[in-house]
Amino acid sequence: MQLPVAHIKIKKINAGEQTEVDDELAVEEPLEIQLSWQQAGGYVQKNISVTMRTPGHDAELAAGFLFTEGIVQHIDQIQHIQPHQNSVLVTLAPGFVPQLQQAERNFYTTSSCGVCGKTGIDAIKTVPAHTPPPDALVVPAGLFYGLQQALQQNQVVFTSTGGLHAAALFDVSGQCSLLREDVGRHNAVDKVIGAALQNRQLPLPQHILLLSGRAGFELIQKAVMAGIRVIAAVGAPSSLAVELATEHGVTLIGFLRKDRFNVYSGAERVKVG
Amino acid sequence: MQLPVAHIKIKKINAGEQTEVDDELAVEEPLEIQLSWQQAGGYVQKNISVTMRTPGHDAELAAGFLFTEGIVQHIDQIQHIQPHQNSVLVTLAPGFVPQLQQAERNFYTTSSCGVCGKTGIDAIKTVPAHTPPPDALVVPAGLFYGLQQALQQNQVVFTSTGGLHAAALFDVSGQCSLLREDVGRHNAVDKVIGAALQNRQLPLPQHILLLSGRAGFELIQKAVMAGIRVIAAVGAPSSLAVELATEHGVTLIGFLRKDRFNVYSGAERVKVG
Repeated sequence: MQLPVAHIKIKKINAGEQTEVDDELAVEEPLEIQLSWQQAGGYVQKNISVTMRTPGHDAELAAGFLFTEGIVQHIDQIQHIQPHQNSVLVTLAPGFVPQLQQAERNFYTTSSCGVCGKTGIDAIKTVPAHTPPPDALVVPAGLFYGLQQALQQNQVVFTSTGGLHAAALFDVSGQCSLLREDVGRHNAVDKVIGAALQNRQLPLPQHILLLSGRAGFELIQKAVMAGIRVIAAVGAPSSLAVELATEHGVTLIGFLRKDRFNVYSGAERVKVG
Repeated sequence: MQLPVAHIKIKKINAGEQTEVDDELAVEEPLEIQLSWQQAGGYVQKNISVTMRTPGHDAELAAGFLFTEGIVQHIDQIQHIQPHQNSVLVTLAPGFVPQLQQAERNFYTTSSCGVCGKTGIDAIKTVPAHTPPPDALVVPAGLFYGLQQALQQNQVVFTSTGGLHAAALFDVSGQCSLLREDVGRHNAVDKVIGAALQNRQLPLPQHILLLSGRAGFELIQKAVMAGIRVIAAVGAPSSLAVELATEHGVTLIGFLRKDRFNVYSGAERVKVG
């Protein structure tokens, strides 16, 4: 697979010395997600979103975005996903009409935030498609210790550019089953969840979602939509992330290191000693 | 000033031992930006955006957002900014009607990206309000070396929570004139530019914008809108960030450390030795 890196000549300044060297950058390009569905005998097509993403796995990204935003609830509602350069056309299954009306009524015209396009502060909360039953999942603390290293070993583009977020799914034996990298942390999560959707693996109550950076509200929300019960982040969580995780009974771990981490909610699933 | 931190009891797991400790989280809450303007004898009010932000400096955030999105071009177009809990109402000056029509025609209904709400891939590029003349700005390499430390010393909330991005303005003598922290990196930049707008300091061709994290396309775009000519990031730039900086003749520095950094564009403004 060709890595999504761009090659460039840069100047390195080091203790007063400058050298010109070849460098690699993480590629960032816009992706337009277009939705098409059957209505009144014909097809309606609508541009749903433009996201700045790292090219690759665009179909997964589109599928994951539509799922975590609550626009589709099941893979069978999607007939076909066709990526083409910097756009991807998602054709919905005949008979399935997406519920975009409420969002359309009071849409926001511009934004540079993560929850824009929604109709108000209450509307930022999406509704999980799956309400998992109470579970008996328990993960030994020792399993978490190795996750960050496993993530780093698998992050090929980060290694060469230092410029990407990653999201990964681990099973409870510590095996990494899926890892995606992207300049946007939401995109990395959407790609992982989109892949799981396409593989008919959702919900994911027996997996750990690992995040390479900080854990904000929206990433927790996406994980909740996918039925994930355990989230571990290398960075810090925000106040609202902890609130949402607590509300949904999700285990949220932050500041994950080789031999230590913090548990912000759902500590009953972490077995120490 | 009260710090935007939330207090919580967490479990710390360290080499198999667990302890319960008091911890501090960076506060993340939604902010709704509402726009109001005079039209046809009455006032029109519209919700423009919901952004997940760290409370504080909400008026600056709204002003900066409207400016960097190209909705207002001058502080005199804003009559009044009224923050109230998790919303802020921006009343535009009598006679000024914002140009939202194009965005409205083909809006996006939902999104979790940084450039959503725009009408297409071409529309993600905003247009700078200022086209600065060619400048003779030259910054000694040694000045950059100290910036990261100065940023860390001023990042009070990060120190306690480890969970915030920062953006700061430095003058060419290395003095920090403005620093803002936020869970969203775009918000930190919008707050800095909004403060400069309110202080009638725009454009800023003699200042350095320092970013605590990575430099993506949208942050460079916001800086270009504010007429900033030199951007230094502690993290990696993306390919599109370098492209945009090059196109606009902006100096872009990445991987800034105590005694070294990389120059990705506009190297003529960096004086080595």
